[in-house]
Amino acid sequence: MPRELFLYNTLTRTKEKFEPLNPPHVGLYVCGPTVYSDPHLGHARPAVTFDVLFRYLKHLGYKVRYVRNITDVGHLEDEVAGEGEDRIQKKARLEQLEPMEVVQHYINRYHHFMDMLGILQPSIEPHASGHIIEQQQLIKIIIDKGFAYVVNGSVYFDLKKYNDQFGYGALSGRNIEDMLNNTRELEGQDEKRYPLDFALWKKADSTHIMHWPSLWSEGFPGWHLECSSMGMKYLGEQFDIHGGGMDLIFPHHECELAQSTVVTGRPPVRYWMHNNMITINGQKMARSKNNFITLEELFTGKNALLEKAFSPMTIRFYMLQAHYTSPVDFSNDALKAAEQGLNRLMKGLSLLPKLKPSASSTVDVITLRENAYKALSDDLNCPVLLGNLFEGVRIINSVIDRKETINKEDLESLTEFMRTFTHDLLGLAPEENGRSNDNELLDKVVKLLLQQRQEAKARKDYAASDHIRKQLASLGIQVMDTKDGAVWEME
Amino acid sequence: MPRELFLYNTLTRTKEKFEPLNPPHVGLYVCGPTVYSDPHLGHARPAVTFDVLFRYLKHLGYKVRYVRNITDVGHLEDEVAGEGEDRIQKKARLEQLEPMEVVQHYINRYHHFMDMLGILQPSIEPHASGHIIEQQQLIKIIIDKGFAYVVNGSVYFDLKKYNDQFGYGALSGRNIEDMLNNTRELEGQDEKRYPLDFALWKKADSTHIMHWPSLWSEGFPGWHLECSSMGMKYLGEQFDIHGGGMDLIFPHHECELAQSTVVTGRPPVRYWMHNNMITINGQKMARSKNNFITLEELFTGKNALLEKAFSPMTIRFYMLQAHYTSPVDFSNDALKAAEQGLNRLMKGLSLLPKLKPSASSTVDVITLRENAYKALSDDLNCPVLLGNLFEGVRIINSVIDRKETINKEDLESLTEFMRTFTHDLLGLAPEENGRSNDNELLDKVVKLLLQQRQEAKARKDYAASDHIRKQLASLGIQVMDTKDGAVWEME
Repeated sequence: MPRELFLYNTLTRTKEKFEPLNPPHVGLYVCGPTVYSDPHLGHARPAVTFDVLFRYLKHLGYKVRYVRNITDVGHLEDEVAGEGEDRIQKKARLEQLEPMEVVQHYINRYHHFMDMLGILQPSIEPHASGHIIEQQQLIKIIIDKGFAYVVNGSVYFDLKKYNDQFGYGALSGRNIEDMLNNTRELEGQDEKRYPLDFALWKKADSTHIMHWPSLWSEGFPGWHLECSSMGMKYLGEQFDIHGGGMDLIFPHHECELAQSTVVTGRPPVRYWMHNNMITINGQKMARSKNNFITLEELFTGKNALLEKAFSPMTIRFYMLQAHYTSPVDFSNDALKAAEQGLNRLMKGLSLLPKLKPSASSTVDVITLRENAYKALSDDLNCPVLLGNLFEGVRIINSVIDRKETINKEDLESLTEFMRTFTHDLLGLAPEENGRSNDNELLDKVVKLLLQQRQEAKARKDYAASDHIRKQLASLGIQVMDTKDGAVWEME
Repeated sequence: MPRELFLYNTLTRTKEKFEPLNPPHVGLYVCGPTVYSDPHLGHARPAVTFDVLFRYLKHLGYKVRYVRNITDVGHLEDEVAGEGEDRIQKKARLEQLEPMEVVQHYINRYHHFMDMLGILQPSIEPHASGHIIEQQQLIKIIIDKGFAYVVNGSVYFDLKKYNDQFGYGALSGRNIEDMLNNTRELEGQDEKRYPLDFALWKKADSTHIMHWPSLWSEGFPGWHLECSSMGMKYLGEQFDIHGGGMDLIFPHHECELAQSTVVTGRPPVRYWMHNNMITINGQKMARSKNNFITLEELFTGKNALLEKAFSPMTIRFYMLQAHYTSPVDFSNDALKAAEQGLNRLMKGLSLLPKLKPSASSTVDVITLRENAYKALSDDLNCPVLLGNLFEGVRIINSVIDRKETINKEDLESLTEFMRTFTHDLLGLAPEENGRSNDNELLDKVVKLLLQQRQEAKARKDYAASDHIRKQLASLGIQVMDTKDGAVWEME
């Protein structure tokens, strides 16, 4: 029986105890990237959020099937309007490339940057373009059940009928009448019976490159359909958790919920989870606002808004400092502070092997560990967990400074606790950018140099020994004299 | 006008001058992995072969669209018989996993090991399972043209009719009558009009997990169809180059050729290229022979047949030592020799920045470079090219030893030549396993230590200076005294 876990469910607006449908199996579906542009900060937050959930569920003993889709068909720019140019296709035409070549390029880029951020690969990463038949099957069912209609080769979901029978808007808390009052009349709306109806299938006009044959027309599926289809195919008609950014609640998840409910007669998802958004210096990130930061720019520092490069682990750490349901604002100062925090945590962990056990403990590792579990089980409260880990760092430093003592058993427990929660659950790993002394050969060569310094001291050539220390410091290598001899670490 | 390139065409059994259909564009299709097992040595050879082709075509100025598919639908174990269990599905049932979860796992593994081998990502990596509609469209055309027939929900290609009209067997040089005489009667053959007919669509029985609806039955496409379909979709009805291992010539490529020819009325591919196979200690690699080596085993040394681990670049170098149309035999001795060869080449390259130009040259870099191009343009003759590169290494060493001189212009040309052909075209890169001194920080620390050694010498403490040299040597760091001071390199 795994430890209790509570998750905030967007649908019920409460924190609920997590109880999977088929324990020990857990089905987790998260909306992945639309692959028509380079991965940016907005991609990183859901990836990190649900990566921690995936890691924690597995740690608790669940067998998790994690599905994260690739939206490669392109979706309409304005789904409510049901019109707008297919985004992927637009990009392809500009670059004179086959759309799938654009898609492949950005999938590769996405994978590359997710790897850098320490995001585990999902169990299945299905492509929307690879599930056209499955989407068509759902459309057929929805038409047969009377909740969709065909006009000029396009198929629309009958939202009014759905609302009357099942009620629409539960996830977003929107009221269909209010939405209607706020809807402008847009081009192409004339095909719809009701302005809020959305497309399940769109007939392709002659300029569309990505299209497939169907019972209704040569065309392409509406955006919302792919998640209903792939969620159902790989996780079953009803599954445990559906995640994504909160910008997807409406209309994407609301429409997905409606489609799936019509098909199976019941709600498809038990727990809907949504991460909050990011801002840049207090503003929404948008290309039009010139405050758009890609992950490559972030990791290289090549963006006018950035004072320097920030490492993938710094970004990950910074995101984890906020609860996933809160917004996160990116600024140079905040990131520099996160970098320091991460270094302090990693330094603490690197000191663990140097701790010497005493006969008794003055520290309480059991409670610390229990609090860490409580934090993660409380709707993935990573900021509180980071507080627990820094309490661990405080203990480590206090034992080194001999202000506290720790016995053998507690030391083993502290080591296991710190490593499990930092590395395995939060996914924070030492970085190989010279900030860690992982490199074995480097360590050995530095030790030879420290030996030279020792010999200089022995022959009382303090100028020489000091010179070596200073030279190393200029390379970012800090030498510390301990009673067991000199040790070193990166600044 | 790019430099001339000659390629051996399996179809014509001659080396032909390469002339693309739509210069500067080149369409290249290579059969990718069937993702039901861990990547092994057999995956590495076509990947390396066509990676070099891809790199060289781009270097020559062509705009290459390189399509390498993922076979994830599973194909029949015995295609000639048309029966046998779907391989992917079998594995999935054993592991109690969703087939697409197995697929995803092995796709990820494949990508990981291809990255290690320095294989560039193809332009498009389409999945067979993502192109069921496109495959069904081809089946419809083939039926409409009268070259396929439906029996009990399965669709078979009418090979006799095709042979009569177009002639079957040109690629493999097989004669349909001979094949017929060698065909045993196998189960399931009764659906076929003719024993050599092959399945375009198979009706799924109740135990099949992977299946899709179609006009003929709930079922799945025959294996050969995916390449006809995806080649056509992404490269056009006729494209330049189709590659793969020579084990795919028959029946896979022969059947693909037949299908596509029926659909479009003309041969789909201009140049068919096939890499030869690998053997292990003189024997065909097969799980049943207990001589099966995965790439992970090779890179970690964890296989009873291996005396030690061999690095990805060693494997790549070893494969390039043979022409791709020749077999390659793997043995510990051969790999150890390749490791030494690779190190010698990399060491040569690392010495380039240390070369001092003279007023005149005693070496002929122009001819060397021209010969290297000739080698690659002669059907990718990598063994000859490696010979040219080792001639480059000889020149580098001779200049260092002052047996030869090189002027500034030639030195620039040699540097550019060595780097372009080694890194960019053969894809051989220094490895970060401590065998290179790329690590900047390490270099700086070693230099501090060499400074200490210099100071020990200055105070005539030769025991100390010698001790430093020996300590570094024990770490594999070789110190050489030159007139410009001490330099170091990894052994």
